[in-house]
Amino acid sequence: MKLYNYFRSSASFRVRIALELKGLPYDYVAVNLLKGEQLLPAYASQLGDALVPALELDDGRLLAQSMAIIEYLDETHPAPALLPGDPIARAHVRALAQLVACEIHPLNNLRVLKYLKRQLQLDDAAKDAWYSHWARQGLQAFERQLLLLDAERKATGQAPSRLCWGDQPTLADCCLVPQIFNAQRFHVELHDLARTMAAFQACMALPAFQRAQPSACPDHGV
Amino acid sequence: MKLYNYFRSSASFRVRIALELKGLPYDYVAVNLLKGEQLLPAYASQLGDALVPALELDDGRLLAQSMAIIEYLDETHPAPALLPGDPIARAHVRALAQLVACEIHPLNNLRVLKYLKRQLQLDDAAKDAWYSHWARQGLQAFERQLLLLDAERKATGQAPSRLCWGDQPTLADCCLVPQIFNAQRFHVELHDLARTMAAFQACMALPAFQRAQPSACPDHGV
Repeated sequence: MKLYNYFRSSASFRVRIALELKGLPYDYVAVNLLKGEQLLPAYASQLGDALVPALELDDGRLLAQSMAIIEYLDETHPAPALLPGDPIARAHVRALAQLVACEIHPLNNLRVLKYLKRQLQLDDAAKDAWYSHWARQGLQAFERQLLLLDAERKATGQAPSRLCWGDQPTLADCCLVPQIFNAQRFHVELHDLARTMAAFQACMALPAFQRAQPSACPDHGV
Repeated sequence: MKLYNYFRSSASFRVRIALELKGLPYDYVAVNLLKGEQLLPAYASQLGDALVPALELDDGRLLAQSMAIIEYLDETHPAPALLPGDPIARAHVRALAQLVACEIHPLNNLRVLKYLKRQLQLDDAAKDAWYSHWARQGLQAFERQLLLLDAERKATGQAPSRLCWGDQPTLADCCLVPQIFNAQRFHVELHDLARTMAAFQACMALPAFQRAQPSACPDHGV
């Protein structure tokens, strides 16, 4: 498998975490978003959305969209599982992942920040306020949801969670961790998100998350 | 089951389609987003993100996030399936759904349009240009992706698709149709998206999509 990705892209980072958690070897193909390499015809002609990440399978077929890729990896390489077995628990984990992937990340990625600057002529302060507004609103919602799920686990006799859900990394952790890296890079206030940051720190103590992080990528700093 | 939702919310519409496709009865609980009812404590205290839709199960537990809810319904009520059986096909369908749910919808929903107006003081023309930019960019990507997938089906000896993927409605159709309703409401140019609009029209010929549409909802026009 080949992963087309960029060290700083948080959607790419999600898939790198999943690959590392499952111990799957892959070729790292860097696509430099700052240089617009995702828009070059050789790449863009193969993918409707011309975004990273994309996973190229051994038969040459390409899979798009980070959460779809992670679900594919989980279905084809089930151990260790990135979703729990119980349907309600699976729904909770997917909803946490989607809270990041549908409510926070889309508002704060590079092409949106570029639109704010170029088309709307926002200055840096207004751009930073935008970033911080959606990151804070989304991460506060994430924190509240983790606390509600902790209460639900307690009420239904399940052990407390150390990560987002339970003790084993899930799709939710694959999405949370890159979003926190992003928030830290943009100096978003995180001190009041105790439960979320505890999950983040527990993830970062694991080798798979360390190996997947931007600073460990071959294109880091290039 | 109870579905907390709003007739015009396209994330709500996705789940209504899935419930109708599966023939599952549910109580419709209207949450008026224009009046901010999703922020009232009785609702917001139960859901981290205080968004619609949310599905309340018979034991009182709440599920959040439309795509997570649809996956839950598909796992617990497998017929008719909203995802194909083959892992690569499943990944393609999920990626199409996520192209809508992660790349288009988040940029154009009500709270973002409010931010543009209130915090950024954009006039209506600039707000409409924003809406149209992301809807067009996303739907053009969707169109390209459908054509690439049609070519892949042909190359791998599969029958042509009449809907987004194949002949049976999937998660991708559940996400596409509400996005087209939205785009039409905002007068987004759609005439060059022939493949996408053909899938949309084929969906709208089906009773489940008709029954789920905003104009068929009890809170429509309230």
